[in-house]
Amino acid sequence: MKRSMYAGAVRSKHIGQKITLKGWVSRRRDLGGLIFIDLRDREGIVQLVINPKEALPEVVEKAETLRTEFVIEVTGTVVERSQVNDKLPTGQVEMQVEELIILNTSQTTPFEIKNGIDVNDDLRLRYRYLDLRRPEMLKNFKLRAKVTHVIRNYLDELGFLDVETPMLSKSTPEGARDYLVPSRISQGHFYALPQSPQITKQLLMNAGFDRYYQIVKCFRDEDLRGDRQPEFTQVDLETSFLSDQEIQDITEGLIACVMKETMGIELQLPLPRMSYDTAMNLYGSDKPDTRFEMTLQDLTDIVKDVEFKVFSQAPAVKAIVAKNAADNYSRKDIDKLTDFAKQFGAKGLAWIKYSNGEIAGPVAKFLTSIAKDLTERLQLEDNDLVLFVADELEVVNNSLGALRNHLAKELHLIDKSKFNFLWIVDWPMFEWSEEERRYVSAHHPFTLPQADTAHELEGDLSKVRALAYDIVLNGYELGGGSLRINQKEMQERMFQALGFSNESAKEQFGFLLEAMDYGFPPHGGLALGLDRFVMLLAEEDNIREVIAFPKNNKASDPMTQAPSLVSAKQLDELYLEVLKQNHSEKNEHR
Amino acid sequence: MKRSMYAGAVRSKHIGQKITLKGWVSRRRDLGGLIFIDLRDREGIVQLVINPKEALPEVVEKAETLRTEFVIEVTGTVVERSQVNDKLPTGQVEMQVEELIILNTSQTTPFEIKNGIDVNDDLRLRYRYLDLRRPEMLKNFKLRAKVTHVIRNYLDELGFLDVETPMLSKSTPEGARDYLVPSRISQGHFYALPQSPQITKQLLMNAGFDRYYQIVKCFRDEDLRGDRQPEFTQVDLETSFLSDQEIQDITEGLIACVMKETMGIELQLPLPRMSYDTAMNLYGSDKPDTRFEMTLQDLTDIVKDVEFKVFSQAPAVKAIVAKNAADNYSRKDIDKLTDFAKQFGAKGLAWIKYSNGEIAGPVAKFLTSIAKDLTERLQLEDNDLVLFVADELEVVNNSLGALRNHLAKELHLIDKSKFNFLWIVDWPMFEWSEEERRYVSAHHPFTLPQADTAHELEGDLSKVRALAYDIVLNGYELGGGSLRINQKEMQERMFQALGFSNESAKEQFGFLLEAMDYGFPPHGGLALGLDRFVMLLAEEDNIREVIAFPKNNKASDPMTQAPSLVSAKQLDELYLEVLKQNHSEKNEHR
Repeated sequence: MKRSMYAGAVRSKHIGQKITLKGWVSRRRDLGGLIFIDLRDREGIVQLVINPKEALPEVVEKAETLRTEFVIEVTGTVVERSQVNDKLPTGQVEMQVEELIILNTSQTTPFEIKNGIDVNDDLRLRYRYLDLRRPEMLKNFKLRAKVTHVIRNYLDELGFLDVETPMLSKSTPEGARDYLVPSRISQGHFYALPQSPQITKQLLMNAGFDRYYQIVKCFRDEDLRGDRQPEFTQVDLETSFLSDQEIQDITEGLIACVMKETMGIELQLPLPRMSYDTAMNLYGSDKPDTRFEMTLQDLTDIVKDVEFKVFSQAPAVKAIVAKNAADNYSRKDIDKLTDFAKQFGAKGLAWIKYSNGEIAGPVAKFLTSIAKDLTERLQLEDNDLVLFVADELEVVNNSLGALRNHLAKELHLIDKSKFNFLWIVDWPMFEWSEEERRYVSAHHPFTLPQADTAHELEGDLSKVRALAYDIVLNGYELGGGSLRINQKEMQERMFQALGFSNESAKEQFGFLLEAMDYGFPPHGGLALGLDRFVMLLAEEDNIREVIAFPKNNKASDPMTQAPSLVSAKQLDELYLEVLKQNHSEKNEHR
Repeated sequence: MKRSMYAGAVRSKHIGQKITLKGWVSRRRDLGGLIFIDLRDREGIVQLVINPKEALPEVVEKAETLRTEFVIEVTGTVVERSQVNDKLPTGQVEMQVEELIILNTSQTTPFEIKNGIDVNDDLRLRYRYLDLRRPEMLKNFKLRAKVTHVIRNYLDELGFLDVETPMLSKSTPEGARDYLVPSRISQGHFYALPQSPQITKQLLMNAGFDRYYQIVKCFRDEDLRGDRQPEFTQVDLETSFLSDQEIQDITEGLIACVMKETMGIELQLPLPRMSYDTAMNLYGSDKPDTRFEMTLQDLTDIVKDVEFKVFSQAPAVKAIVAKNAADNYSRKDIDKLTDFAKQFGAKGLAWIKYSNGEIAGPVAKFLTSIAKDLTERLQLEDNDLVLFVADELEVVNNSLGALRNHLAKELHLIDKSKFNFLWIVDWPMFEWSEEERRYVSAHHPFTLPQADTAHELEGDLSKVRALAYDIVLNGYELGGGSLRINQKEMQERMFQALGFSNESAKEQFGFLLEAMDYGFPPHGGLALGLDRFVMLLAEEDNIREVIAFPKNNKASDPMTQAPSLVSAKQLDELYLEVLKQNHSEKNEHR
């Protein structure tokens, strides 16, 4: 029989109708001489009832064999439910089963198919098809599909062309580590899976496509964290002839549309904007969570004459104030905060508590001379806890910024119903890499410098500012973009500033430089991290919860066992041999 | 200045308005003391005019430096054009330029930016961004974006969930050759890029997603032909609890929607259906082009007593009739047809011409006894050419089927305005592979056998029929699908029939077999080749024309030079070494 509707869609209006449903046995109970079955499908659960005194013997017989997760087809009449269940949308009704077909059986599942299970991640991934049956998971994927639907229609409407870019692309060492794909036809040569279609979409602008978008898989072979996966999806867009402001406006419209259609939230536009410098100074972060205050307060001027040399001699001293929280933190608790801050480079954490107009704590005695200034500047009130870091400005910002987020969680300062979007603008073009002992791109080498700082490409790289903009949501980097370089001379200067030789620039990016010989239009764009966006909308804290078949933290799939060994023939066709020990290991052993 | 509209969008209604346009100089002409510029953007071309006697000197000066493909911004007033150009949608108007900004310059392009160029493919690919500027190319990508837009909205509307499946998946030797991706974390292990998300989408059905779709990249490392690329895109869908007919109905609705929205063509539904056997018998092809007749006619019964042993002793003799074409084919021409037929296994081609009630040609003398029967069976008319193949049935069908398509092209029998869709149903489950000396899956090992033939899984494999269906468009396989196996026992029988040992079945597909322990619902689906579909709609004959950055026939990209050499460090991190000579070459040299 053809299914009449989803189980979760049966309502009072169907009372009296004979319908057919198909789905999974969520539960079977034998109660008061009746057999009750909760039938589950994508849209929900409805109760089935079989009265052995009235039903056909074969139906009763089959019903008695039913176990959890059996797949069944039932036909029967919708009736009013004697005991209404207010928790279920179908709770007004039940079906009196007249026909029953068992479509498939099931063994006992390794974990229960219900919300809020406490099961280790690898077991969930190994039986992902069961994990995904749980209503809270299914809900995430409905949300994800809705989000992409809204995004596509919004961009289609604005004349953006959905264009697919290659997955088998060229390896470029600049940036993160590539996933490589050996070529069989060109022996010893490799494709790379794209980290993003950055250059390709720029070339589409050169092709005159004017407005491009794509919801596209990208790949980075980096070590994994909670919100990282080897493959991830971005909403990628690029436009010609628009200003940074115009691109941001389009993005804001897109985000507002998603928030309205999926969450029913009306965003107020324009979204707030903050310069990178302000963000670092006030929040100690380039992706500040503005759902709570507790900003970083600069005290360098106030402490410059105190006797406490840790403060007076430090290049920068800042503090954050945990309002009305002094009682919550013992010395031991504060030691833990100190350990936390040390992970971000701080050498230590100074603190005072404020109470009855007095400051107290181990360093209070050194600060008596400025107690009044401090109290005023920090607007201290009873039971406030003040945490100080004194160090290089960058260390101060990083450690207090991290501590700020940490405390907000501990003190439950965050209003989880808020979705605080924020643009971060006026980015530095470069950041210093301690590892590589050189300046590297803060975004990527195709970002257009702000005109009034471009001369520093041949001077102080720390002073070059980028026409770049990141969009932040609740302390997460949701995406970012920039205007791009479209003039060959500027692109060459950029490569030079990054330390590329002419040869290596040409070898890696020669095709882009060449493309700039032929009327490359002004252009710019943006990319949003789709997984992260959906994760935040779904109020999850790991992107795995919004990816159907993610990898675990070893980048493997416990279900299929990918990656796996392959046959000698496969390797031979690729002219590859797997080493037992690689060169860096050999060198270590010497 | 902000662009007011696209250049191609200026119309009479804008006369008198001051507007700003941005785009490329398609042509500059100095004529009668005036400077004319054709300005091109994504939506078309509009004429700009500068009168040196009236314009600002700096505008004139800049205008005189303009060359083809310069990128400019112009502001001016729309006026009526004195000499209307009916070929352009903007031909009623032109812009009198008041301001001119040169946004970028251009060198002379390696080929002209216009439709219908005759340039070799690698040059077009090397400068793909210029090739894509050509209006006929841009048009293809607008069509492609429209097609996917229509498909997505149709499927979203029907409750299909757009779910992304992994690109880094598991290598399975069954099927075509995989592209491999070495893992850095699991030394010596490899991911494979998916040939299709077949098993993954089945698992989504097991997860209760009920209706899934995805427009998704797939990968096959095979040698390339005109309509093959290493990566290609399919419209992939899967459903639970539906019959094959219901899945076909959904697909037909989808196709009808695409044809209406993109081509303005109303398809008549349901689409015609033909069994695999009928297609092979009448058209010698499992993807018959039904835009023309010239079906294969079985003559085995008529010729069984003729003295011509090539005919009388052959297992099968069939003919095709090229109507009114005898005059077009000299003996030499027919020799060419013979050579063509031999490529498909025919040992030769017999032929007769019919004229004035007589048959003529080298074999006519052997056929006089059956001339009347032939004439009647084939309904011969003056100037008909009859081509015979006598051989095993499969060879007869393959060679005459190919010849039929070949002749239709030579004789211009094809009405190119037609879009003939056709379902091929009742497929054999297996086909014999001469190469592997065993039966292999005609589709894939997850296809459900027709119930009344399933017992032949342990008998004559050639007799097992599949619940599979292909959709054909104008002689191309547009896509295909099937109902799938959802019972473990049946899946195990299938693997056994294909010659898998229990161990190898478990090693490769153990996770699927295990999934069948847990209430796997009945399910089925389909995949359409998007590149091919768009190619046919765009009336192109190579999928490269509808892929933005395709590979050439050596699977490389002449623009980026991908695949390319990678650094020793990259290989070392993957524990890989590239061999100069692989094992099969070493063995050859022994």
